[in-house]
Amino acid sequence: MFRSIEPAWNDDNLRELSGHIRSHLFFAHIRAAIGSAVQQTNCHPFRYGRWLFMHNGFIDGFASIKRDLVIAVNESLFPEIKGTADTEVLFYLALTFGLEDDPPDAVARAIGFVEAHGRARGIQYPFQGTIATTDGESMWVFRYSSQGKSRSLFFTRDVRALRQEYPDREILREVSDDTRLVVSEPVGDLPGAWIEMPEASYGVVTKGGDQLLSFAPKPPHKAA
Amino acid sequence: MFRSIEPAWNDDNLRELSGHIRSHLFFAHIRAAIGSAVQQTNCHPFRYGRWLFMHNGFIDGFASIKRDLVIAVNESLFPEIKGTADTEVLFYLALTFGLEDDPPDAVARAIGFVEAHGRARGIQYPFQGTIATTDGESMWVFRYSSQGKSRSLFFTRDVRALRQEYPDREILREVSDDTRLVVSEPVGDLPGAWIEMPEASYGVVTKGGDQLLSFAPKPPHKAA
Amino acid sequence: MFRSIEPAWNDDNLRELSGHIRSHLFFAHIRAAIGSAVQQTNCHPFRYGRWLFMHNGFIDGFASIKRDLVIAVNESLFPEIKGTADTEVLFYLALTFGLEDDPPDAVARAIGFVEAHGRARGIQYPFQGTIATTDGESMWVFRYSSQGKSRSLFFTRDVRALRQEYPDREILREVSDDTRLVVSEPVGDLPGAWIEMPEASYGVVTKGGDQLLSFAPKPPHKAA
Amino acid sequence: MFRSIEPAWNDDNLRELSGHIRSHLFFAHIRAAIGSAVQQTNCHPFRYGRWLFMHNGFIDGFASIKRDLVIAVNESLFPEIKGTADTEVLFYLALTFGLEDDPPDAVARAIGFVEAHGRARGIQYPFQGTIATTDGESMWVFRYSSQGKSRSLFFTRDVRALRQEYPDREILREVSDDTRLVVSEPVGDLPGAWIEMPEASYGVVTKGGDQLLSFAPKPPHKAA
Repeated sequence: MFRSIEPAWNDDNLRELSGHIRSHLFFAHIRAAIGSAVQQTNCHPFRYGRWLFMHNGFIDGFASIKRDLVIAVNESLFPEIKGTADTEVLFYLALTFGLEDDPPDAVARAIGFVEAHGRARGIQYPFQGTIATTDGESMWVFRYSSQGKSRSLFFTRDVRALRQEYPDREILREVSDDTRLVVSEPVGDLPGAWIEMPEASYGVVTKGGDQLLSFAPKPPHKAA
Repeated sequence: MFRSIEPAWNDDNLRELSGHIRSHLFFAHIRAAIGSAVQQTNCHPFRYGRWLFMHNGFIDGFASIKRDLVIAVNESLFPEIKGTADTEVLFYLALTFGLEDDPPDAVARAIGFVEAHGRARGIQYPFQGTIATTDGESMWVFRYSSQGKSRSLFFTRDVRALRQEYPDREILREVSDDTRLVVSEPVGDLPGAWIEMPEASYGVVTKGGDQLLSFAPKPPHKAA
Repeated sequence: MFRSIEPAWNDDNLRELSGHIRSHLFFAHIRAAIGSAVQQTNCHPFRYGRWLFMHNGFIDGFASIKRDLVIAVNESLFPEIKGTADTEVLFYLALTFGLEDDPPDAVARAIGFVEAHGRARGIQYPFQGTIATTDGESMWVFRYSSQGKSRSLFFTRDVRALRQEYPDREILREVSDDTRLVVSEPVGDLPGAWIEMPEASYGVVTKGGDQLLSFAPKPPHKAA
Repeated sequence: MFRSIEPAWNDDNLRELSGHIRSHLFFAHIRAAIGSAVQQTNCHPFRYGRWLFMHNGFIDGFASIKRDLVIAVNESLFPEIKGTADTEVLFYLALTFGLEDDPPDAVARAIGFVEAHGRARGIQYPFQGTIATTDGESMWVFRYSSQGKSRSLFFTRDVRALRQEYPDREILREVSDDTRLVVSEPVGDLPGAWIEMPEASYGVVTKGGDQLLSFAPKPPHKAA
């Protein structure tokens, strides 16, 4: 992990490192801070064990429900929270709800929990954004907002299809068949390379074949 | 407030500002981080309303009791916690226990609370250090540690007495009669200028006359 | 002077300081770095003695002519150059050419020198931008580019006229009659408050009355 | 290259990177700034092409001779100077004098040049320090000061000899036979592992066998 509070486009260390680090799976995030401080411990992705987690969006009214959320984090995980960003708390909620065992269920429960507590405090649309998480092997990506107007998320079409369409593109020959990019907004200049993820959906990128499924938060169970 | 994560001796901004800011009371702190991240939101002093709070020392085993301490912070104060330092949590505990009304009582209760929860987790000496707090008019300083071996704290003798002893010292003529410096270690070269605060004591520096009193933490009340 | 490499809108120190510093004349600059490193010593304004100097623009092909420019800086001024930005070198050239005695002449000679050396290296349009400089009392502002398509510069109309037009605006009653703002782009929502400086012009803002004059670089004298 | 202005012991990025970067030769430097600004462009090592260069020491009176030194740098190299540190100028002087072809000769000429110009300005002891430079394959290290009281430099004894002396040390079995550490001060707890380089000497660490030789600056040739 490399995190910096300087603009990415002027960061010499980032440029140097990028030339020396290879990975079959990597996460990149540029943060436009709203609310919590600009400091390395608030930079995405957040990490716990083998897991990374990042988010393009926000928890609305976070200050008013932060205490509720933090108290719900598993006691043994609590000391691992290093910063003050809403996303980090969401990550530890998801870990509390079983992210390592069932990522879609845990994220659905974490967002459901945020929505329940936000609405209890009078916040109309508590959650907004897209999320990506990984255990280093597979990747889970989510697009959802309480308002139903989520920030965008795009993924690349199958690389083999792209190669046929753009046989002259060097980069398409360099990457493996199962390469998949997931981005907030399309990059580059290949029309037709990007497919937008639908509202309220999630995707799994994994070796055994990728999936695109619908997503809905799971509200917390009420005590009888 | 000016806070920076760069070494103070090379900070051009600090040098510039120091030449332009005047105050009848100011706090300065150099942090040697142990545990929590080096970031502006963890730099001392911490501030709430008119109050500043700083600390030379640590809460031992902070990670293991942080959750207990954070949950004890008044719900309305909770969202004001901006960083992750042990001292900031101690400050908000003291505010919860009435710092604005009775600083010595609130600090005694905050440290008593830390000691009770630390010992419950098997930590032998939960609190170490010296504390200074102010409402902008008066200043309260504390020296205490659970072990009875506290970090040092010194204050200056009465300025009028110092002037008589060192009539040639320009700086002593420039400052007012009720000037008082409180420091972790003596600075400068005036033998006899500094008096060490005793173990387990606190001082009040205020317009109506300063005081030096003994200090003891107040353990939390047990439920019957 | 306060300089920082973090985005101004998230800089807590800037916010704090702004509430405590008063001056009858101040400079503010946000740098979008092109070429030289993002570091405090490259942040504008640059200062020498009582003089501040800042620039919105660039010296084209600076790397290729930097040596020529640096060597032309007065030997006694040379050690004062603290950073690596093109603007700082331009400032020290202007100081070398008499900025402290005759700012418009010195800036005209500095830009003329840059143009001569740039063109000798095949650079078509060596200088672009607007400049502001001050001795703490008066302010000189310049708009010029070798191409004749200069970055914009606006100044406020006479405050008394603005007050008549907008009698309800509190801020216009708070400022003195001779208040003048000079900005790269208009700010706020007062139509008619801003006058654009013409191409190739400079202005003097001073107590005895402001002036707007035409500007032309002065090429270096050739040896016979 | 990774450079940072934060204390190395609290730098999370450094810790992360160190676990992922492997190299058969690496340089590490902690700077205690004296004179030039604390900024990444002044952090050692400096780099040009395949070459790295770092220095523990200083050029005395650098401000007064910087202009002389900078003007002597080859015109084509001049634009490569990115910061303002004395060591970077020394590096570009050494490159100007042929570092890439004959490192000991180039460093001797660069230091000789510094001494000649320093003494011409009345500086008694212009150069102090130890230097290390590499082309990525071999390493050249120097210990020298104009005063004859140079900062210390130590290198490790032959690894095979150390293994015999300390058969239980895991780390000695992990490293290859031709491993060599060169450090300003001995680290670790192996008495007898370190040999101090003599005053006015230089060493070459290379695959064909290491060498330790005497060093003397070469003064610039005078014009007839």
